[in-house]
Amino acid sequence: MDLEPFFNPSSVAIIGASREPRKFGHVIFKNFVESEFKGKTYPINPKAETILGLKAYPSLKDVPDELDLAVIAVPAPIVPSAIDECLSKKVKAAVIISGGFREVGEKGEKLEIEIKEKTEGSNLRIIGPNCIGVYDPASHVDTLFLPTYRLRRPRAGPIAFISQSGAFGSAVLDWAASQDIGISKFISIGNKIDVDEVDLLNYLVNDPLTSCITVYVESIRRGREFLKIASKVTESKPLIVLKGGITPEGAHAALSHTGSLAGSAKIYKGVLEQAGAMQAQTVDELFDYARVLAYQPLPKEQKGIAIVTNGGGFGVISADEVSKLGLKLANFSPETLKRLQEKLPDYAIPHNPLDLVGDADVERYRFALNAVSSDPNVGIVLVIVLLQTSYIESDVVDAITESQATYGKPTIVCTIGGEFTQMLVKMLEEDHIPSYVTPERAVNAINALIKYRKALEDKEKRRIG
Amino acid sequence: MDLEPFFNPSSVAIIGASREPRKFGHVIFKNFVESEFKGKTYPINPKAETILGLKAYPSLKDVPDELDLAVIAVPAPIVPSAIDECLSKKVKAAVIISGGFREVGEKGEKLEIEIKEKTEGSNLRIIGPNCIGVYDPASHVDTLFLPTYRLRRPRAGPIAFISQSGAFGSAVLDWAASQDIGISKFISIGNKIDVDEVDLLNYLVNDPLTSCITVYVESIRRGREFLKIASKVTESKPLIVLKGGITPEGAHAALSHTGSLAGSAKIYKGVLEQAGAMQAQTVDELFDYARVLAYQPLPKEQKGIAIVTNGGGFGVISADEVSKLGLKLANFSPETLKRLQEKLPDYAIPHNPLDLVGDADVERYRFALNAVSSDPNVGIVLVIVLLQTSYIESDVVDAITESQATYGKPTIVCTIGGEFTQMLVKMLEEDHIPSYVTPERAVNAINALIKYRKALEDKEKRRIG
Repeated sequence: MDLEPFFNPSSVAIIGASREPRKFGHVIFKNFVESEFKGKTYPINPKAETILGLKAYPSLKDVPDELDLAVIAVPAPIVPSAIDECLSKKVKAAVIISGGFREVGEKGEKLEIEIKEKTEGSNLRIIGPNCIGVYDPASHVDTLFLPTYRLRRPRAGPIAFISQSGAFGSAVLDWAASQDIGISKFISIGNKIDVDEVDLLNYLVNDPLTSCITVYVESIRRGREFLKIASKVTESKPLIVLKGGITPEGAHAALSHTGSLAGSAKIYKGVLEQAGAMQAQTVDELFDYARVLAYQPLPKEQKGIAIVTNGGGFGVISADEVSKLGLKLANFSPETLKRLQEKLPDYAIPHNPLDLVGDADVERYRFALNAVSSDPNVGIVLVIVLLQTSYIESDVVDAITESQATYGKPTIVCTIGGEFTQMLVKMLEEDHIPSYVTPERAVNAINALIKYRKALEDKEKRRIG
Repeated sequence: MDLEPFFNPSSVAIIGASREPRKFGHVIFKNFVESEFKGKTYPINPKAETILGLKAYPSLKDVPDELDLAVIAVPAPIVPSAIDECLSKKVKAAVIISGGFREVGEKGEKLEIEIKEKTEGSNLRIIGPNCIGVYDPASHVDTLFLPTYRLRRPRAGPIAFISQSGAFGSAVLDWAASQDIGISKFISIGNKIDVDEVDLLNYLVNDPLTSCITVYVESIRRGREFLKIASKVTESKPLIVLKGGITPEGAHAALSHTGSLAGSAKIYKGVLEQAGAMQAQTVDELFDYARVLAYQPLPKEQKGIAIVTNGGGFGVISADEVSKLGLKLANFSPETLKRLQEKLPDYAIPHNPLDLVGDADVERYRFALNAVSSDPNVGIVLVIVLLQTSYIESDVVDAITESQATYGKPTIVCTIGGEFTQMLVKMLEEDHIPSYVTPERAVNAINALIKYRKALEDKEKRRIG
């Protein structure tokens, strides 16, 4: 894999490593030195003797080692000469952090062309320019030049995230960290002078740490190749794409943002559908879908949804949403209805949505979740659990994960609240039970699960037919 | 105002006040005793001498004082006799917390009828049963029987919130507290044996602490009266309604939840439109709309939206959303374009969305916000500010509130991230600048502002025409 040096380099040089704490080159160098990154790190700076106590080298050629990866954080006009150094040194991969290229107009575009001409026919692969590069929580490669007190790094997990926009990527990463969402690899691709989403999908399809891939793009240059690899990816891993610039206004904005021609909404929709990829319509949907698709199994057959709740209102709204999206509620089997009737208090009517009523405790949840999850008519379980009552303790998390593990049915949680709720949401997230703050978002995530299953079936049919 | 005793009682009796910390009657009594509630509080319990150090009374008639409010937290079958005591004592208002009425079937319905017959012709007003009652952060009336470590109480603010569902209400209150959203009054109306949304709107329309009203209902029994008061309310205060049970599945769930017949989606939509009220389609929208309508002025004329951002991708997605919703971006005036061109760095192209680029600092925001806010073509300002870069410090909040205060144009923020972001969001919230985590929700909130303005214009036209 020619992209491997970006994610697992045994040696890294930071061109433009600086002694000044606020400079990008300083932050990036510090990320490598102070983390558990296993490889060697070399700061390149002709004006410094040492940086953070490590010997600095005036240029790449002075480094007494082979180099897998170079991170370039010098002003745009100097980047071509840094690339020259990379080529002489036979560096395998370079991340160009610097801005000031295609996105600022003609002068910058010329610099990009100059770099492209230099690297043609070489083995050097480039991510960027105008990007924040790579974050890999497994290998601790971290070229994000934003300090951790501003941009908290998310923990390791199964979701890969490719973003054309660096600011979009960093904002979402920071948010993901606060939600305890796990990331396998993050790549900001910027102006895509070389490595683009097609290359990355080719790499990530075989990445054992990635089980679901999210993408934010404003343009896809290689449409045919994208369709091909996207179709391949979706056979083994869900792929969710948020496309910016799908309206004339958005497309115009994209042009001045990453210098991209955005292309028509219809074409993208068609391509994504054909590939079996999910299109996120909003920023929320990108990770709402990713979390359910990465964590939960697909429903085995086209069976109904069971809703279990301790808040009647949330049950009502969920049932509304199920209906609006054309999904169906499960009809509980006579056996299940009998079990529920026998065990639940009189005032909890055995019906779907199953309202366990405000005084439900963890035992009542445990019983009800086992009853509905074992029902052959139930394909998916939506657990609404409002944690404002003191009847429910944190072991409701165990009740949910256990019934999911026992019956293997996709299980989704809806809960909203303050600190206690947020703590339980993180526990659920670590147990790979995705949780959503509103019934609408939870049911929409269920819809994504059903749609992905349908997309796989359709592909299978096309193959046979 | 006959509902005043619910919100500003000078004396309260808690019928069913208990010594056991987990009992509802204990939590409610504690809320009154340990808060800054100014009135007198009397615990009613025939089996206790004192509760929390205060003398307990065997029954209401033993209380040596007039009583404005009684909170009833005893089992359903005993509630009619508690009501008898209220009537003899000439209590003005009662909140029946207890469940076990209409929502559990025939037996409970009979109890409701019994209570209704008893109170007919009296001056006693009743909220509930099957509810969590009233929370008023100004007077410190707090009948929520959920302990504060589970359900944090939101601070005082301009948004009133009426919820037919207690669990829905408490979950949303807890969440509102965590977001620093201010509430004027919260009322959970439950089975609505007496006081319903119509009565509460009649009261809240004149409440000086309330500038915006949110409602979650599953049924509205008095449709004609509702239309009348809703129309009156919207002349001075925005009214946002989330209706549960608008599909057959949801309506069926509502029947077993609050025993309500839900009524058709079309009728509700028509009534709300005619009244000039906003219909929230989702739980998110209820408070997304409330916060912008409560805090921000209406745009003066049908002018365009200016978008200022330091994240190009978020600018692109916002422009997409503006277009999808049929809104329009402002064309900056030649003067504004000239000012921007002169002052901004080369690589920030003067265009709407205005991408200030990743290295924008607070000064650049301050300049840009003043430039676009003073542009006569701009009616509304959307400020996207991603706080992962260390160029931006917390005084960006001042830059935003100052340009809003100087030019008086509705100003909305979009930002997403971890701890630092969440801190600034709370600062903005306290300064009455609503903030949204995604561009889609921010633009949707702007749409609500424009729609409300349009609804007021339409009403004005109907009045003249």
